[in-house]
Parts: sequence; structure tokens; C-alpha cells
Amino acid sequence: MKERFTIEDLSELALRALQASDVSEDNARTVAEALVAAEADGLASHGISRIPFYAEQAKSGKVDGHAVPSVDLPAKAAVLVDARNGFAFPAMRAGLAKAVEITREVGVTATVVKHSHHAGALSHPVEGAAEAGLVALAFSNTPSGIAPWGGSKGTFGTNPIAFACPRRSLPPLVVDLSLSKVARGKIMLASKEGKPVPKGWALDKEGNPTTDPKAALEGTMLPIGDAKGAALALMVEILAAGLARANFAFQASSFFDAEGPPPGIGQSFILINPFVFAGEGFADHVELLLTEIVSQGGARLPGARRIALRERARDSGVEIPGDLASDLRRRAASA
Amino acid sequence: MKERFTIEDLSELALRALQASDVSEDNARTVAEALVAAEADGLASHGISRIPFYAEQAKSGKVDGHAVPSVDLPAKAAVLVDARNGFAFPAMRAGLAKAVEITREVGVTATVVKHSHHAGALSHPVEGAAEAGLVALAFSNTPSGIAPWGGSKGTFGTNPIAFACPRRSLPPLVVDLSLSKVARGKIMLASKEGKPVPKGWALDKEGNPTTDPKAALEGTMLPIGDAKGAALALMVEILAAGLARANFAFQASSFFDAEGPPPGIGQSFILINPFVFAGEGFADHVELLLTEIVSQGGARLPGARRIALRERARDSGVEIPGDLASDLRRRAASA
Repeated sequence: MKERFTIEDLSELALRALQASDVSEDNARTVAEALVAAEADGLASHGISRIPFYAEQAKSGKVDGHAVPSVDLPAKAAVLVDARNGFAFPAMRAGLAKAVEITREVGVTATVVKHSHHAGALSHPVEGAAEAGLVALAFSNTPSGIAPWGGSKGTFGTNPIAFACPRRSLPPLVVDLSLSKVARGKIMLASKEGKPVPKGWALDKEGNPTTDPKAALEGTMLPIGDAKGAALALMVEILAAGLARANFAFQASSFFDAEGPPPGIGQSFILINPFVFAGEGFADHVELLLTEIVSQGGARLPGARRIALRERARDSGVEIPGDLASDLRRRAASA
Repeated sequence: MKERFTIEDLSELALRALQASDVSEDNARTVAEALVAAEADGLASHGISRIPFYAEQAKSGKVDGHAVPSVDLPAKAAVLVDARNGFAFPAMRAGLAKAVEITREVGVTATVVKHSHHAGALSHPVEGAAEAGLVALAFSNTPSGIAPWGGSKGTFGTNPIAFACPRRSLPPLVVDLSLSKVARGKIMLASKEGKPVPKGWALDKEGNPTTDPKAALEGTMLPIGDAKGAALALMVEILAAGLARANFAFQASSFFDAEGPPPGIGQSFILINPFVFAGEGFADHVELLLTEIVSQGGARLPGARRIALRERARDSGVEIPGDLASDLRRRAASA
């Protein structure tokens, strides 16, 4: 059973559920906004379904709901954010606000977030930077999921890469993908339903290919492009977590329980002012490429579905599972 | 029939073959050094085999063998290089020399090369930056090869991504991969041998999967990770060619003939000073991750084979096909 909410009502409910779980109003508002935005974009696995996990972690102290991120500027083009084991969203927001300003002037910045938590839909922070006229690249690591090529241990996270590019009078072009062949959620679903998973999705804990979803969940996710994807996952570990000595995937605790120390993972962002390199002609030049893509029957731009769903959500709200809605109401009422 | 050369002799022969083809001594030296370095690393497809194509292009004027790249600093953290339709290697070298210097001070830079040519082994420029203590990320586009997901035209190049990270007292960690599932050379080889190629490597010119290597060569290469790899290829087009209004893949002429206008593609590099973010502990922190990888039986670090081959080449030289050696000697003698 699904229950339909307007964006406003769902945001309010999410806010109250988080506030009732030992999260400051400022942080609860930023987190609720990010999760509802993901829900509106059709990214349910990064949406409201995360609140029960976030709330339990805030209550146990695995995430500090009252953390106020610090933003340092250790060099002219560098922004270093300490999320202080709070949620990632307020830390990314604080760092990027500063970074957007600096990038306009110096042309390029790197923003690195340490002692961080789940980045949610990494499409959103890069989209925000692109709305401010910048080209943006983002990396996050996550708790373990992918083995090094030839190995058997979940050394790397599923490690998303996101990218956004401004367009003239149109929403930014946005790319957002994780480096595992499929989302872990698909294997969890198969496990619940007792169905096998296709070969090529996962390895068991000995590093052998498996179609048994239970063995897959104890093992590792296969990366896109075999050795190439594993190498990209390693690259993201170093960019997202290496640069600020955040926890690597293999050191990080789970996003899905309230036990143990904070995950302490990292995110990093490269913002580029395209005007510095390309002058006024940047947007028109990029449009040549995008036109070449959409002129081909069957091809469409990455993120097109996300934007269509977002518009629909604005008009007619979103549906979430009824038991999730009840869970949020129960949490909100417990304040 | 193969012929064995010392690195020094092969470099000298490559230098003379290029100089005899209307390439300035400075440019010929830089290009020869880059191609021989790729050959020594076992990357024959980016090595000496390119010289006949480069030489013919220099003679026809498709590449300007006498070009002197210009390096501009349009903002504090931005380096803009115009390769002036010469070879990519002297342009990348000039831009990165400046960028390394600036990155030490401001923490991060972007270097964008326009009016450029084949980047060769993109592992080398990032490795050089990492030897100077910086984390480096590189992108190049190439003439058409990959269709947008759902499309049929070679809109994106095979678009390499390279990454390097300094290590304490060890050669840098280097990742270098193209976004096509396999190298086009493998399909060319199958075509020569009259053998089918595996499904999943390529599409025919209508955008349908094919195992016929001839149809594949007229069609497009499949990306790693299906839609994800196609999205990454789009990202690389914008980072490598969009930022400086260089030619996109679909606009670029071939690297493999001497006809038409210059390819005019682009490269871009992000250099990051890890010390700014991580302090002295950076190398030790990264080493935790690399140790976790190599401790797993069967897993090894990306680039490990390349370094082993390079050491072997230093000791005992490299072998190149006899007809290629003859071709180079004929060109060198024609001066």
C-alpha cells in the first residue's frame, strides 16, 4: 500500500521525524530537503526510505545530529570541510557555498569533506553548482561493496561519480552513477523474493561468481567494466577519502545500522568556471554535442527521466510505502 | 618478425623519422620520448606504431610539426594551452610544467589543452605530476567511437580517464583506462583474421549488436557499463573538449589518416596538492588502502604490469615489428 504526499507535507513530516530523533532543526531541515528532493527525482533508495536509518543513528550517536560543520580554506583554491561526524548534507552545502564563490574568481577549486556520512543523491550538489554557472565533478566513497579486481574483499565502496554542466535557459545536464554494475538494493530484493540474481552482478565471499542473492549479500558487488570499474572505484576512494584522510570503504561502518563508530567517509568536489577557459561561447558549444545526442532516435540525455519525474512530483506529489509513512509519523509524534 | 632495440636506439630512430617528416627537433624529441615510453610500458598501440601516421600527418599539414604551444593563465588556478594544431605532447608538457608550480601554491588547478592531437598514453602526464607530489586526473577525447546509449552514431570518443597518486618511496599509483569495452585494435585484428568478435563489444552502423568485425568497424564501440559508460564518455567530452571549445569526437578528423583538417580535440588535467588537505599523513593513509588490496591473493594494483614491463625494457630493450622498424629507417633516411 502506497500513500501519496505533496512535497511540502512530506518535507514537513521528514523534518519532524528527524527533529524527534535528536537532530537540530537546521540539520533536520537540510537533510529532509535533500531526501525529499531525491524522492521527487524518483531516487527512492536515496530518499525518505533512509530516515529510519538516519534517525536511529542520530539517537545512538553514530551520526551527530547537532554537528555544525567547519569550513577551512587551507589554500587559495582549496576548501576543506569537517562534517564532524554529522550528516553529509549540511557539510557539503556549507563547503560548496564557499567553493562556488571562490571558483568564480580563481577558475577551479577542490572541496573535500571529511568525517562525513551518506552523500545521498550526489546529483544534487553538482546540479546546484551548475545552476550557479559552474561545471562540477563529485566523488563519494561508501562503506564496502566492491572487491579489487582479482580479490574477494569489499575494499571499495560502490563509489558514485557525479557531474553537472550548465546549459543556457535549461536545467543543467547531470550525470550520476555508482560504479557497481547494479544497486545492492536489487540483490536485497531478489533475496527477499527468493529469486536468483543474474551472473555478473556479484561475487560470494570467496570471490567466486554467484547467482545466489544470499551469498552475494555476504560477498561483493561486481563493478562496471570489470577491472576498469574496479580501478575507477580505487580512484574514487583516493579522491573522496584519501585526500582528507577520511575512512576508506573497508574502514567504514554501515549506513544501515546504528551500531559502531561513525562511518567517517568522505566526499570531494571539483568546481570549474567554464567561462575562464571558453568565454561566452561555452554553453553554445556544449549544446552542439547535446543536440547531436538527442537527434539520434532512441538516445536521450542522462538525467532526463529524473527531471521529468521531478516535474510530475511538483504537480502531483510522490507516493511512499504506507508502512514507511507510518514509521515517520510514529517518530514525529515521539518528540 | 620482431626486431629488438635499446630504448636509446629506438628513441634516436623515432626522433630522426619524425624530424625527416617536417617536425621541429624540439617537437620530434618530445613526441619520440612519449611514444618510446609507451612502447617500454607495453602499450604498443600508443607507441612507435603511431609514427607512420604522425609522420604522414606532419607532411600533409594535418598536424603542424613546428607548432609552439602557447600557455595562458586566465585565472589563478587555471592554465589554458593552445596546442596550435601541433602534437599533444609538447602542449601537455608545457601546460603541466606551469600547472605543477601553481598547484603547489593554490592547492588545485585545471589545465585545458585545445586544438590538440592524440594524447598517447595518458598515464604518463599524470604519472609525471604524481612524481612531483600531486594527485592528478586527466581526460582526453578522441575521434568518434562510442554512441550515446540508445543511439547509433559515434558521438563520443573512446575517451580515456587517467589518474595518478604519489606514494612514499615508490613509483606513483597510476590508473589509465578508455571507456570502450575493448580497444578498437582488437576488432581490427579480428577483421584481419576473419574471426567474429564476442557480442557486447560493438554495434553496427544501425546501432544493432554485431559479431561481424567489419560491421563493427563501420559502427560503434560499446562502452563499459552500458548506459553508465556512455554517460562517463559524455562527461569526458565536456571536460576534455567542451571546456576550451575544442572539437568534440563527432567533429574530429581521424588520428589514422593524413586527410582533412586537424583533429582539434582536447585534453584536460586536474592537479591537486594533497598536502593542503591531508598534511604529511597523506601517503601513509593511501598506503593503508593499497596494502589492503595487495594483501588479497589474486588482486594487484592497476599499472603494476606496466611498471614491470618498463623495468624489463630498461634492461633489455623492446621488440617492435620488423616492418615497422624498416618503415622508420626509411623515413629517417629520407631527410
